[in-house]
Amino acid sequence: MKTLFTILLATVGCTSLAAGRLTDYVDPRIGSEGLGRVFIGPSHPYGMVKPSPDCTPSPNSGWLPMPERVDGFSQVHVSGTGGGPKYGNILIMPFATPDGMTRTTHYDRRRDETVSLGYYATHLDESDINVEITTAPRASVYRIDYPAEREIKGLAIDAGFFLGYEPIPDAREAQQLVGSQIEIDGDHAVKGYSRVRGGWNDGRAYTVYFYATTSEPFVETATWREESIGSDRYCVDMGDRTGALLRFPSTADTVTVKIGISFLSELKARQNCIDQVAGKSFERVHAELLDEWEKLLGRVTLDPATPPEQRRMFYTALYHTMIMPVDRTGECPLWNDPTPYYDDYYAIWDTYRSSMPLVTLLDPDRQRDIVNSLLTIYRRDGFMPDARSGNANGRTQGGSNAEVVLADALVKGLNGIDWNLALEAMLKDAETAPGGKEEAEGRGGLRDYIELGYIPHGTPRAGNRTVEYSLCDYAIAVVADSLGRDDVRDRYMKQSGNWRNLWRADYEHDGARGFIMPRDRRGEWLDSIPFGHGPEPRPRFVYTPVTFEGPWYTPWWSMFFYEASSWEYSLSIPHDVPGLIEACGGPEAMESRLDTFFDHGHFNVNNEPSFLTPCLYHWLGKPHITSRRVANIVAANYNDTPAGLPGNDDSGAMSSWLAFHMTGLYPNAGHDYYLIHSPLVKSATFNLDGGKQFTIKAVNFNPDKNPYIVSARLNGKPYDLSTIRHRTILDGGTLELTMGPRPTGWGKQMF
Amino acid sequence: MKTLFTILLATVGCTSLAAGRLTDYVDPRIGSEGLGRVFIGPSHPYGMVKPSPDCTPSPNSGWLPMPERVDGFSQVHVSGTGGGPKYGNILIMPFATPDGMTRTTHYDRRRDETVSLGYYATHLDESDINVEITTAPRASVYRIDYPAEREIKGLAIDAGFFLGYEPIPDAREAQQLVGSQIEIDGDHAVKGYSRVRGGWNDGRAYTVYFYATTSEPFVETATWREESIGSDRYCVDMGDRTGALLRFPSTADTVTVKIGISFLSELKARQNCIDQVAGKSFERVHAELLDEWEKLLGRVTLDPATPPEQRRMFYTALYHTMIMPVDRTGECPLWNDPTPYYDDYYAIWDTYRSSMPLVTLLDPDRQRDIVNSLLTIYRRDGFMPDARSGNANGRTQGGSNAEVVLADALVKGLNGIDWNLALEAMLKDAETAPGGKEEAEGRGGLRDYIELGYIPHGTPRAGNRTVEYSLCDYAIAVVADSLGRDDVRDRYMKQSGNWRNLWRADYEHDGARGFIMPRDRRGEWLDSIPFGHGPEPRPRFVYTPVTFEGPWYTPWWSMFFYEASSWEYSLSIPHDVPGLIEACGGPEAMESRLDTFFDHGHFNVNNEPSFLTPCLYHWLGKPHITSRRVANIVAANYNDTPAGLPGNDDSGAMSSWLAFHMTGLYPNAGHDYYLIHSPLVKSATFNLDGGKQFTIKAVNFNPDKNPYIVSARLNGKPYDLSTIRHRTILDGGTLELTMGPRPTGWGKQMF
Repeated sequence: MKTLFTILLATVGCTSLAAGRLTDYVDPRIGSEGLGRVFIGPSHPYGMVKPSPDCTPSPNSGWLPMPERVDGFSQVHVSGTGGGPKYGNILIMPFATPDGMTRTTHYDRRRDETVSLGYYATHLDESDINVEITTAPRASVYRIDYPAEREIKGLAIDAGFFLGYEPIPDAREAQQLVGSQIEIDGDHAVKGYSRVRGGWNDGRAYTVYFYATTSEPFVETATWREESIGSDRYCVDMGDRTGALLRFPSTADTVTVKIGISFLSELKARQNCIDQVAGKSFERVHAELLDEWEKLLGRVTLDPATPPEQRRMFYTALYHTMIMPVDRTGECPLWNDPTPYYDDYYAIWDTYRSSMPLVTLLDPDRQRDIVNSLLTIYRRDGFMPDARSGNANGRTQGGSNAEVVLADALVKGLNGIDWNLALEAMLKDAETAPGGKEEAEGRGGLRDYIELGYIPHGTPRAGNRTVEYSLCDYAIAVVADSLGRDDVRDRYMKQSGNWRNLWRADYEHDGARGFIMPRDRRGEWLDSIPFGHGPEPRPRFVYTPVTFEGPWYTPWWSMFFYEASSWEYSLSIPHDVPGLIEACGGPEAMESRLDTFFDHGHFNVNNEPSFLTPCLYHWLGKPHITSRRVANIVAANYNDTPAGLPGNDDSGAMSSWLAFHMTGLYPNAGHDYYLIHSPLVKSATFNLDGGKQFTIKAVNFNPDKNPYIVSARLNGKPYDLSTIRHRTILDGGTLELTMGPRPTGWGKQMF
Repeated sequence: MKTLFTILLATVGCTSLAAGRLTDYVDPRIGSEGLGRVFIGPSHPYGMVKPSPDCTPSPNSGWLPMPERVDGFSQVHVSGTGGGPKYGNILIMPFATPDGMTRTTHYDRRRDETVSLGYYATHLDESDINVEITTAPRASVYRIDYPAEREIKGLAIDAGFFLGYEPIPDAREAQQLVGSQIEIDGDHAVKGYSRVRGGWNDGRAYTVYFYATTSEPFVETATWREESIGSDRYCVDMGDRTGALLRFPSTADTVTVKIGISFLSELKARQNCIDQVAGKSFERVHAELLDEWEKLLGRVTLDPATPPEQRRMFYTALYHTMIMPVDRTGECPLWNDPTPYYDDYYAIWDTYRSSMPLVTLLDPDRQRDIVNSLLTIYRRDGFMPDARSGNANGRTQGGSNAEVVLADALVKGLNGIDWNLALEAMLKDAETAPGGKEEAEGRGGLRDYIELGYIPHGTPRAGNRTVEYSLCDYAIAVVADSLGRDDVRDRYMKQSGNWRNLWRADYEHDGARGFIMPRDRRGEWLDSIPFGHGPEPRPRFVYTPVTFEGPWYTPWWSMFFYEASSWEYSLSIPHDVPGLIEACGGPEAMESRLDTFFDHGHFNVNNEPSFLTPCLYHWLGKPHITSRRVANIVAANYNDTPAGLPGNDDSGAMSSWLAFHMTGLYPNAGHDYYLIHSPLVKSATFNLDGGKQFTIKAVNFNPDKNPYIVSARLNGKPYDLSTIRHRTILDGGTLELTMGPRPTGWGKQMF
């Protein structure tokens, strides 16, 4: 009965797959080449387990395009990240070579590769083996087809592998092994763990436990410690690299390997394996993954006329937005609070602008869980994370941007959040300097920020920290206001103007006047800044609004702005755009400045601080220019190819920016409205929580001939504002945008 | 052959035991009752595993005197601590009651109890079972004698037990369960772990893994999760309490249980069990423990004429000094640096004064390892610990006293320490405020301390923090000086006078003038101080130099002084006693003040800040008064009974104070000399590293009739100084002290 049921479900899975579902439009390869660095293997939404090939030299997502060699397939990865790698734990590699049981490494070359949603397959050259991969949220499944004629049908499991190995101890952003362990359990299972510290976020040690079962028995086994292979059934943790070699019967042409993963224990990894994949065929596990995604992707349906290329871009963007952070509820080794636990925030500096708002709109329960996870992390670890991975806060990029995530959740009415606790967490960031741990959490340079109203040059990232803390202060004021904490609100609303303290009003560059520029502790503006840190005499270099990198290799972490120029950050004041326009010399000067920004190449499409800048024309009463800019940016930088993302996807940041803009909406995180511009698809319907629908519909849709919104109707009534409130969308309805060849006066008013 | 060898060794062990060894004089019960709170179970020197009975209500060491009930026997404990409990993990309890397999708790009453070094035995009333315990460094051994006539011969293993359970979530200083797991492995073994956070030092989660083997097979097993008992062979970690029930054959009258413990994994726990106790009889394990202690205790030999009571006091004091911190080298789950790893510093505030100096003198290699462990913790975790436990820094009591430990190691010439790294670690404490983690590490109130030169009232422990930071600054100056860092030395030598900034020179009390008193931020002295914290109006109470506790229940952590009065701390300036004498009004005023201190009950024998005070007469040229004070204090407060320690032993602090004074020497931590006073034993020989010996010998020894040193000879030559350098002792030789009935001019000069 059970077998029949399994086959039945597997068939259903295949049928659904064949029926042209939304999941068909997800192409995990988009953004995998070039700068995108997205994860290409199978993943459930926010899935803890992310199996993927790992190629040498180790890239952040594990994968590199053919013909790079493959070291094997490990079970935990991140997506779209820059900086040093993280994870890449518990590597398996099948082999069919005669000397297979005498080697600890079995890298091979791929003959071809198939990548689709929840599915990866490749053919290994030397061993002539076919490998297919799919996954459940917490257990991965491999189907390995060995060449029938080979005597050796083997599998290596490496518990000591991880991405980004560096022979230099404590090399910056490199992972370092703490220990590993492997144990052969009977003739169908292997268990163990990998314990690693460091990596991208310079985090504390994390442990990935596994329990792997095979459909065929072992006829020979070996284990290894470093380079020494022996017949022991286990290798106990001695702080080094361990692994196992397994040989299946020579008649075993196909072997299925199921690998449960846990951050608590091997037994929990086994339980995850039992709960999620035991007794299920490869096809059924894959079908269940597709069903999960189908439900989630179905939160937005596009017009039937939407071309496949655009569908692929759109649904893949949703997919990329929803594979991180990862849901590790019940898998936290630090506490057992009943609140949800999410890890791998990579980083909130990247995701607060568009990724988190997209999840809030499409999957509010999920975003509530993520927010509560942030608050639990604050309660237990002392600070909310900016970049958390491997159960450890690490590497603040800019500000303490979790504060904006909280304010955004508040203004969008997310339920089930303790707002007093939220304010407490925000005030911790804003009032307690994270002594000695500025790299990991809280607000570096806080003391100066509070005393001087800005961060003087000398503190790393003085520029963007000042600008972003002022935004974060606005976020605090928003939450304080809702709690009736007027004193706090007033204080932080005042502080939210601190960006002005680095505004060098008379500085001119490329026709624009007024820039965020370095300033020393005494208040003097600096035209040149010293290189590096420390008291010794240091060479200086000229700093201008287009300075991006230091003259020698300088990590972003040490520059005046993180990953940006002053041209970019000087336009990145999302909580006070009217004030910014005034500071720039008024609407006309601002329009001219924005044009210069885009036309003279100051805009950096792959950079989060500029995410909102194309929309600033809205504040000048000219949303039609926003529309034109957005359409051009998307056309020039995004497509449905492997190089279709213009920068590191940063855990879905680039992708969510695209997805919003395709619908004609874009959020300003921490505010309850969306900016309306010309959609890139004929219609998009949000299928909201509770069964309501909200549709954005373009009449006379023809982006080439009718690029502009000439009039609009909301639920049949004229609608002249260029923004729409979150609550209005939640109420359901239709926003009908009539498109035309020339801009009209539509959208002059924002509110 | 193997069996014969085992028996042989066991016999050797027994023989040595019978031969009247130093270990015979260790009585772990001394200090177990009253305030001492010492651990009474078996422990190797610095042993990771410390099995002991656990009684309800849970005390810090696990044990309480009969007739308190026994919940069972857990494997990890601390010794002599105050505050909330820690550890108490992996509880086992034999039972022989008919309903045994249906209950998760099996507490019983003790009929009698035997406690000796490395050995504990008791008889359980209800079950009529005899339990004996001994231990290896990382594995414990139990011998259980069941009553022959009982059908049920059972053992419960509770992986969810820990000391100090509080039903209130996050109750202050209470441990909280994160998760546990249990798995029956074949018919002779059980494995699992307990993961717990919080407790005394409010630490992060730690995990204690175990692997228990039994000499008899299981004929029936059950496991439980919370209150639900079932036939499953395992309970996976779901964040709750789990355990196992085992039944042995009814013919199994004696069962030996061996429990390996690890902080890495169950397999490592099993390996520890194999490496340390597999194939060894109970007697042999015990004999090996005695051999270890014999070697260590033999570093000091007392005069043959020393009465047994004094021998028991002395060797038990050495024993108590050397059971913590615990050596967990190779067991650190956070990093795998090749440096030693010690945990359970409980706390350095308690141990820097006499415990660490005693280890430095008797076992310098050990102290070097401990110092290197502190430096590795700094390098990896960001700060050296004050109180570290469960792999987490937590709860600074006073200052950042690890700095004094480093200076003490330097002036005493310990080799193999990276002094540049040491200075870096010290400067981190002294210059980087531990933002938001002041409770756990670094210097709380640092900003004020640097800006004002003192910590104003309002910051918890403003008084002792100011006083101790100034001592710590002296320690920094010492290390900086040795590295030729004159700028650092000068700055910190200047700061080491900061205690003067809280010295209220005109304040008089009980005939003394000048006290460390609370001062506000503006520099005003406070005669009354507000209760509690926060901006709201708060009741005030009068603060005087004898104020010890707040008027309502106020934890030490929030008072002006931690665990002390101003009378005590105003005399606790060990790095500048001459300056203190001057501040007190000169030698005569000081002598009168010291007399008042001791005679009017201001001295608190159980309190570390007063440890050096009896010796302050040395600085007045009157070491004979020191001798009298010390003899009286010891006579009135120390003995060889279970109530023989006058306060929490604090990981050996009280004990090491006693041991030093019995020999006639007392250290001033951070300085390279010992103060010489009348020994309490006729002679003591230090058997030093490298084979040299240094003997302190009292001629005309008769404490009642000849309480004073009247003259001295060092290696045959007259010696008139009242101190002796560490290096002089290391060179070996004899210090002959001639005792007499009346003080002479001997010892007027210190240096």
